[in-house]
Amino acid sequence: MVQAKSWILAKHFDGFPKKSDFQLQVEELPEPKDGEVLLEAVFLSVDPYMRPFSRVRMKEGDVMIGTQVAKVIQSKNPAFPVGSHVVGRCGWRTHALSDGTDLVHVMPDWPKDVSLSLALGTIGMPGLTALFGTEEVLKLQKGETLLVNAAAGAVGTVVGQIAKIKGCKVVGSAGSDAKVAYLKELGFDEAFNYKTVSSLEEALKKASPDGYDCFFENVGGIFSSVAIQQMKNFGRIAVCGSISTYNDAAPQTGPYPHLTMIFKQLKMEGFMQSRWEHKRPESLMRLMAWFKEEKLKCREHITNGFENMPAAFMGMLQGENTGKAIIAV
Amino acid sequence: MVQAKSWILAKHFDGFPKKSDFQLQVEELPEPKDGEVLLEAVFLSVDPYMRPFSRVRMKEGDVMIGTQVAKVIQSKNPAFPVGSHVVGRCGWRTHALSDGTDLVHVMPDWPKDVSLSLALGTIGMPGLTALFGTEEVLKLQKGETLLVNAAAGAVGTVVGQIAKIKGCKVVGSAGSDAKVAYLKELGFDEAFNYKTVSSLEEALKKASPDGYDCFFENVGGIFSSVAIQQMKNFGRIAVCGSISTYNDAAPQTGPYPHLTMIFKQLKMEGFMQSRWEHKRPESLMRLMAWFKEEKLKCREHITNGFENMPAAFMGMLQGENTGKAIIAV
Repeated sequence: MVQAKSWILAKHFDGFPKKSDFQLQVEELPEPKDGEVLLEAVFLSVDPYMRPFSRVRMKEGDVMIGTQVAKVIQSKNPAFPVGSHVVGRCGWRTHALSDGTDLVHVMPDWPKDVSLSLALGTIGMPGLTALFGTEEVLKLQKGETLLVNAAAGAVGTVVGQIAKIKGCKVVGSAGSDAKVAYLKELGFDEAFNYKTVSSLEEALKKASPDGYDCFFENVGGIFSSVAIQQMKNFGRIAVCGSISTYNDAAPQTGPYPHLTMIFKQLKMEGFMQSRWEHKRPESLMRLMAWFKEEKLKCREHITNGFENMPAAFMGMLQGENTGKAIIAV
Repeated sequence: MVQAKSWILAKHFDGFPKKSDFQLQVEELPEPKDGEVLLEAVFLSVDPYMRPFSRVRMKEGDVMIGTQVAKVIQSKNPAFPVGSHVVGRCGWRTHALSDGTDLVHVMPDWPKDVSLSLALGTIGMPGLTALFGTEEVLKLQKGETLLVNAAAGAVGTVVGQIAKIKGCKVVGSAGSDAKVAYLKELGFDEAFNYKTVSSLEEALKKASPDGYDCFFENVGGIFSSVAIQQMKNFGRIAVCGSISTYNDAAPQTGPYPHLTMIFKQLKMEGFMQSRWEHKRPESLMRLMAWFKEEKLKCREHITNGFENMPAAFMGMLQGENTGKAIIAV
């Protein structure tokens, strides 16, 4: 018998999440049955998508959704032997029973000197999101100029570096001077702090006077309304996130983009990385290869202690993290 | 010497156009020089795009932009002999001198029993807009369900009929019961009067409970915000127009569509038919063939008299026309 802790969505978020929206639950888990494994979380992930997903995919009393790197500590499933590591959609839990359907093995040949936490970041879902967004949605070409916002986040950092690998000019927007400095370190051509520029429009124009071929959109809201005006004709926009609107109690409104979309003949596409599940193994290997070649650098914002998950989640939503927000159990 | 009348944009439109924003001008045109032709307008076109284009492409004092079917009445350009008919971007003018660069011949072998006015409608720019929007942008497939708004207009009527030719289910929205009856006559599977339905959301759900694969967007504004929620996963939206917003003194605002675009993985693309100029001749022949086979029917809303152009334009913006709004000189 193992004591399993989990974080429950006690109350649907109304505006910005509050500590009291979460509730820690402790239960005893039975032994795994035939075909099952018992998992122990090593690293857990907090990601922006959890905020809107909680509203549409969860009811009060559910365990918070999420992915983790876990170690198999008991196994009655030969596909997942004791001691192996998996990435599992187990939710915010220290321990979980699984029949394996919601698990994938951590990439084969994961190098011993690379933290497994990267399987939740640059060499995991956020990295794949960046890769599929730039290659499959934007079809980014050498020589083009790409704009990415929330650029110092788990996805944005990878987007910008992939664009540099592809020979593009990259402009990033982030919410602190330290993040801007980090973007420059990563090789971004231009970066600015959207909170301190006197005009977002002017900042975008200055960073690329000719406008933007591609825009990897993580922020939404007013940023999107301003950025769309700076697109070149036939510009492409990959809509990955909308973090500036996730905590609105009432939906934010803005000017309709139709006329600009018509006159500039823009294309805009929303996506989730799960669409390219079939490309996952090959894509993770490419991300790992770039990481080993130091073409893809990454930083993590690690919070220690499972009990601190709600705080880590709220901090991530406020932009406290540079790079991927990770919880180490 | 010929007396040429033209309509001037005397004052930029502020909100809905007013009679006093236009000014009739009369001038005498000289003889055509070498390489030039003198044209006499036969049919002129008023189209929704003129409203937003006036703001971005014109200054006060310019002749109103627009296309016409004209007859060559004097010619010093062997490419355009006297008596031939052309489609010209001459603006709102009864007569014009042209060096031929802004002219195209009316389709060769134009049947004698088909009014040349159709070269401004179903077998002209609006027809091409409908064709390229459904084929090139939406890539509409047999068996899919398509929504089109402003469905009884010059573009919408063609969109719906092309979708029927392709074996699709078509739902149309229009602004009067007479228009709705006309859409049914044209073979639309479902049609409704958006002005009288108690809920646009319910009307869209009732017309297609499974949602929409494709949406040909002519209206914008609140219609777009409601319709986007009724798209199926991986739905495609061709943004052709936004007529409900053209006369706003201050830009209309609405909820940002990002989250819906992400969760449903929608694609949205703005376009203008001029992008496929190279496909124009072949496409006009297809439209004409469908018309001759009575697969493509059309109706025109004809205003007589050049002096009535501003009224015809304002009427079209208010939805007075069923089918193409045409001015017969």
